[in-house]
Formats: sequence, structure tokens, C-alpha cells
Amino acid sequence: MTYAFSDRMASLQPSAIREILKNTSSPDVIPFAAGNPAPEAFPLKEIENITRIIMGDNPVAALQYSVSEGYPALRDAAFSFAEKREPGIRKPGDTILIVSGAQQGIELAAKCLINEGDTVLSEDPSFVGALNALRSYHPNLVGVPMEEDGMNLDALEKAMQTQPNVKLLYIIPNFQNPTGITTSLEKRKAIYELCKRYGVMILEDNPYGDLRFDGSYIPAIKTMDTEGLVIYVGSFSKIISPGLRVGYVIANSDFMAKMVVAKQCSDVHTNILAQMVCERFLISCNMNSHLLGLQKIYKSKAALLIKCLEEHTAGRLTWRAPQGGMFIWCTLPEGSDMVAFCKKAAEAKVAVVPGSAFLTDPSEPCRSFRMNYSTPSNKQIISGCEIMGGVLKDFLR
Amino acid sequence: MTYAFSDRMASLQPSAIREILKNTSSPDVIPFAAGNPAPEAFPLKEIENITRIIMGDNPVAALQYSVSEGYPALRDAAFSFAEKREPGIRKPGDTILIVSGAQQGIELAAKCLINEGDTVLSEDPSFVGALNALRSYHPNLVGVPMEEDGMNLDALEKAMQTQPNVKLLYIIPNFQNPTGITTSLEKRKAIYELCKRYGVMILEDNPYGDLRFDGSYIPAIKTMDTEGLVIYVGSFSKIISPGLRVGYVIANSDFMAKMVVAKQCSDVHTNILAQMVCERFLISCNMNSHLLGLQKIYKSKAALLIKCLEEHTAGRLTWRAPQGGMFIWCTLPEGSDMVAFCKKAAEAKVAVVPGSAFLTDPSEPCRSFRMNYSTPSNKQIISGCEIMGGVLKDFLR
Repeated sequence: MTYAFSDRMASLQPSAIREILKNTSSPDVIPFAAGNPAPEAFPLKEIENITRIIMGDNPVAALQYSVSEGYPALRDAAFSFAEKREPGIRKPGDTILIVSGAQQGIELAAKCLINEGDTVLSEDPSFVGALNALRSYHPNLVGVPMEEDGMNLDALEKAMQTQPNVKLLYIIPNFQNPTGITTSLEKRKAIYELCKRYGVMILEDNPYGDLRFDGSYIPAIKTMDTEGLVIYVGSFSKIISPGLRVGYVIANSDFMAKMVVAKQCSDVHTNILAQMVCERFLISCNMNSHLLGLQKIYKSKAALLIKCLEEHTAGRLTWRAPQGGMFIWCTLPEGSDMVAFCKKAAEAKVAVVPGSAFLTDPSEPCRSFRMNYSTPSNKQIISGCEIMGGVLKDFLR
Repeated sequence: MTYAFSDRMASLQPSAIREILKNTSSPDVIPFAAGNPAPEAFPLKEIENITRIIMGDNPVAALQYSVSEGYPALRDAAFSFAEKREPGIRKPGDTILIVSGAQQGIELAAKCLINEGDTVLSEDPSFVGALNALRSYHPNLVGVPMEEDGMNLDALEKAMQTQPNVKLLYIIPNFQNPTGITTSLEKRKAIYELCKRYGVMILEDNPYGDLRFDGSYIPAIKTMDTEGLVIYVGSFSKIISPGLRVGYVIANSDFMAKMVVAKQCSDVHTNILAQMVCERFLISCNMNSHLLGLQKIYKSKAALLIKCLEEHTAGRLTWRAPQGGMFIWCTLPEGSDMVAFCKKAAEAKVAVVPGSAFLTDPSEPCRSFRMNYSTPSNKQIISGCEIMGGVLKDFLR
């Protein structure tokens, strides 16, 4: 039988990079293609203890249906945590919604806002999971090219002027996935002002903000929001655990009333034990020292990858050092066939993600690929760069 | 600021029954309005033990990112469990997807299939959570009136003949929410044949199937499916715990490939610890005796509610005894203002759900309301019926 899928989903195909990465999940492949937080960064003992205490003290509450807005104590704890990390993020009239990972926050916002054909702007390249959530509502998805300090503002304004029904801008201001780029304070302000001028809402995704290991804190765009334009999406995936699938959205309550309806339609509420675990973790752990510990791990892994890249690929590959997060964006010399290189690397059991996967139009030319340094072990980083250096040398010969 | 919501969500309002039920969540209100499984039916000790073992043995696997299709061991265990409960449910080429509760299975199927304006058929009345998930993709939602043994087949066929682009039929064949009605074997076969003839897919929702305490097993429509028309949605909410938010979808793999894309956009994957808990529970517990235990609890609570209704409302209220599930559908005498009665009952601290909430068109006349017997304690059932009987007597005077 041939299924008649909806137009919105019919156009959304499993990505071509899946083919390239198909055989790269086996343990003998070096996983630079992944996006997993470093497993050594998980607070295993704390989560185990907290889980045991909750299941011992209050198992019925942890297992019964709950409210769509989220476990009330976690809503309070997450709001306080966000306010500590991003002073001024909570505006009068704001509210918080607990979601099943930041991915769900993005998907629900897209569902609530996008009519077919509305324009959605995005950094280009950007996180493919978010792009697909946006695409799944069939918008006119328009990419804005990235520069060292964030989006090109002229291109952004031109898109706002020329594209039809510009509804939403999707942005990852800190250590962007996949480029590692951090949007400067000046650009954040300018982006906000443009959105205000043209009446465009901002979907600010900040999964990596707490993983800054270099440079100085830059406030979230949400902290500058005087008009209720910004939908801020936070995540516990990188600082507690991704398997829990717990994130949160902070936005004006008029917007959020609709998000709650969408959340209820989507999965009623987020796994309640996981919400209770996050709440206890935020309340009972010293979050400052926990985050410092994570930042130390990520700093050292990023430094190791850069050192190994320098050793084995210098002069052939270019990249920029990120100030945080989990990714390095590497670019091949002009004229290189990037996809062919990624295939060669995969054959040599080193997996990286072809950069075209992150483009708003994946058929555009691209000489870059994404490397992750949080998933591979230090040993894997060292041997992976050595192997990749050899493949690269052969490839460019 | 006034938000410009998408058309699909703009039309989806928080339901009017929320207003009526607003103040009924306090502990002094008798919760006949709820839809929670009986807390005494939760296998608390087993879940606590399993959780402790998983977090002790394999915490990194329980906390790391996983695949969108679901935890492989749970996919196997859930498939086997479904095949034991519904022999013949697995057709050649079928596959299983783990979802964050049956609600998500319904939402994803709607997203994958429904274009704006396509016709979706549903039993009328039906589960409001599913109706809203369907509505959130802006279909032409058409209700088919219910009879004692399931939908009116003439009305069903007429809708298939006269409505535009009939894409999907949503049905809860066992102990339907809210009516408690079980669709007969003859009607299941006839409904399948009609869907086959008119090329309509079937979304078969079976959250209560394992809670049969009376009458004989009737096979799922999915077991009759020779064409890959049926999307079967199962849930662990009523037999393990709803707070875990774990359910599953069984359907043809061609259809499911698209569901996996939608699942990935929605929340990447379902909470992995909860998936591992369900898997261990299915594998290590004696499911037959566990389900027999649940059925005993539900049978006794249903019998108690019926006994109390007979004692306090006989001659004024009518209802039918369900063969399983969690709900009884009560109907007031002709000419009664049902919403006014539900308000009076809520004022007397007895919460029931006005039946109009479950109609495909909530503005249609309705003299029925839904009572749940799994959430209130036995003591609450007894006193709640006594209070309701008094309110009813006054109301009809």
C-alpha cells in the first residue's frame, strides 16, 4: 500500500547523511559524528541517589499522571536556575513550561506559530534537529549566512524586508551547533532590534550556554526583550542528562497558554520521575561547582582535539576554536569534495558529519564538516585525528 | 503584544470544561472527573526495584541519548507482549515504535497523515485528548454516533461517501473513553471492511484492552488487517504507570518510516530510563497474574460505583455497565440541563466531566456526563454517590 502522507511530512525525508553514517555506530568507529554529552560528565551517583530517594519516599506521585505545564516544584527550580544563569531573563508576565527536551520546545513553538508558507529565518548552517522540526510545518525556511560573530545582519534585514510573512527567527547564540560560533553582544542587540522593528518572533535555543570554558558570559537575547518577542528554550540534557528528556521554555504567558495546549496534545506531560530528578538535582547539588566541573571536562577535550588537529591536519584543514559547547567546524581547502572526504573518513572508521546536513538548503555547496569532542574518549580523539590526518593527506594528494 | 498563532492552533481553545473543573483539584473534591489509573494498582515495589537495579548496573545507558525508534530491548518486549495479548496483531512487514505515551502516537499519526481540511472520522463522543490532537492539524472532524455495540455503520459509510478526502478513522474499540462501550466483533469486521473499501486508514487506540473484567476478549481490528491500513496504539499507562509516559505504535514499516521522522522532530526519543523500566517489567514480572490483579481492582471499583449509583440515583440517571476500563457514562432524563447539573455537583464538591467535552462538536446537545471509578477511593465513591444523589434529587425537583 502507498501511504498518502500529509504535505508537511511528505517533503521531510530522512537525511542523506544517514547513508554516510549508517555503519558508523559500531564500537570500532571513532564517534566524532555524535552529539552526545561526555558520559564522564554525567552526575551518576547523584542521579542514582536522588532517584532512589524519590522512589522510596513518594513513588505514587512519581508514577501518576501530572499537569501539562510541568511538575510545579521543577517549574520553580528551573525558573530560579535560569534567572541565576541569565540575570534579567524573567520578564513581567513570563511563565515557564517544562518540555520533553529542548527539541520539543522548538517543535511546539513551530506548531503554534507557523502556517504553511510563512517564512522562518535561521542561522545557516544550524542544528539539523531544529531545522527539521521547523520544516515539519512546511515553512519558507530561509538561511542567514554566519560570520565569526554571528549572522550577517545585512542578509538578515534583507530577508525580513523581502521574504513573505516572516514569522520567526531561530538562533543558537552560544557555541552554535554546528559551527561553534558565539554571537557577539552587539549582534544580539542588533538582531533583537531588527526583530522588534519587523515584528519577528525569536526562538532562542541555549542548550550549551552553561558549557562556556573560554571568553566571557554574554547575556541571552531574552534578557533584552521588552516586547514579549523571545521564546527562550533551555535544556538539562547537557548539564544533567539527555536521556531524561527534560527541558524548559520561558516566554510571555499569553504565548505560553497556546504552548500548553500544544504540549497537552503532544504527550500530556513530561515523564514525571525525570522532572522530580531534575528538581532535586537543581535544589540539592551545588550547581556552580557542578558546572565548573563540566566546563573543565569540555575545555580539556576541546583543547585535545585542537592540539591533535594541529598535529595531523594543519595546513590542510581550517577551523576556529570554540569558547564552549561540544563542536568544532572544520573546513577543507577550496575545490575539495567534502562529502567524498567524509565517506573516505567513514571507511577508515572515523565518523564526522558532512556540513551540508546543517544547511537550510542541503544542496548548496559546502566544504565543511562537524566534529564533536564530547563523545569520543581522549584516546579516540588522539587516534581519530591521526587516522583522519592520513586520510586527508591521501585525499588532497 | 498580540501573538499571531498558526491557523491550526488558533482554533484550538482550552476547553470550556476547564472552567467547570477549575476548582475541583483540591483534596476535598471527589474526583469522578479524573482519568487516572487506580494508584493502588501501581506495581510500586517492582518499579522501585527495577529502577534501582538499572541505575546501579547501567546508569550511563539509562541517561545517554538513544535512538528515536525506541530502546531496542523494549521494542522486542513490547512487540512480544502485544502479540501475546492480541494474537495475529503483527503482520509481515510491521514494525514497532516506542512513543511518549499513546497520546504521542495519536499526535504523530495525525501529523503524518492530515492535511488541513482532510476528513477525520471519530466515534462520537470520544476521548477529548485524541480529538484535540487530531484537531491540532485542522481537519474536517466528523463524528459517527455511538450505539450499544459501537459506531452506527450507516452513518459511518455515509460519511465515507459524502465527506471530502476521508483519510483516517479514530476508534477505541475496548471500553471506550468516555462511553465505556465495547465495539462488537461483527462491527469491528464491518468497520475494517468499510475502511478497506473506501481507502480510509484506521487509528486504533487500545489503552484499556488489558483492563477487561467482564465478557470475552474481542480481537483488535489490527489483527484483521490485510492491507496495512491499521495503525495500532498501545500504552503502558494503565498497566504499569502513566507518569512514565511510555506507549507504542505498531504499523506497517512503510508508514512507520515517516512516523520515526516525526518522532525525531518531536522529542528525539522517549525517556530512556522509563523505557528500560517497562522492558524489565515486561520481562521479569508475571504479566498474566499482574493483569489479573488489576482487573480484580477495576472490577470491584466499577461494581461499587454501580451499586452506589443504583442506591442513590436509580430512576433519575441511566448508565450501562462497562466490561472493563475506567469509565461510566451517565445520562440525565430528557430535558435536563446537563452542564447546569455538573456545575451543581462541582459546587457540592463532586466532580464529573460534562459529556459535551467529548463531542466532535461540543455545541451539540448532550445530557450525559462521564464518571471515573479508578481515581476515587472506595470511601469517596460511596460518599460521592450519596452527595450526587442529593444534588440530583434537588436538581430534578
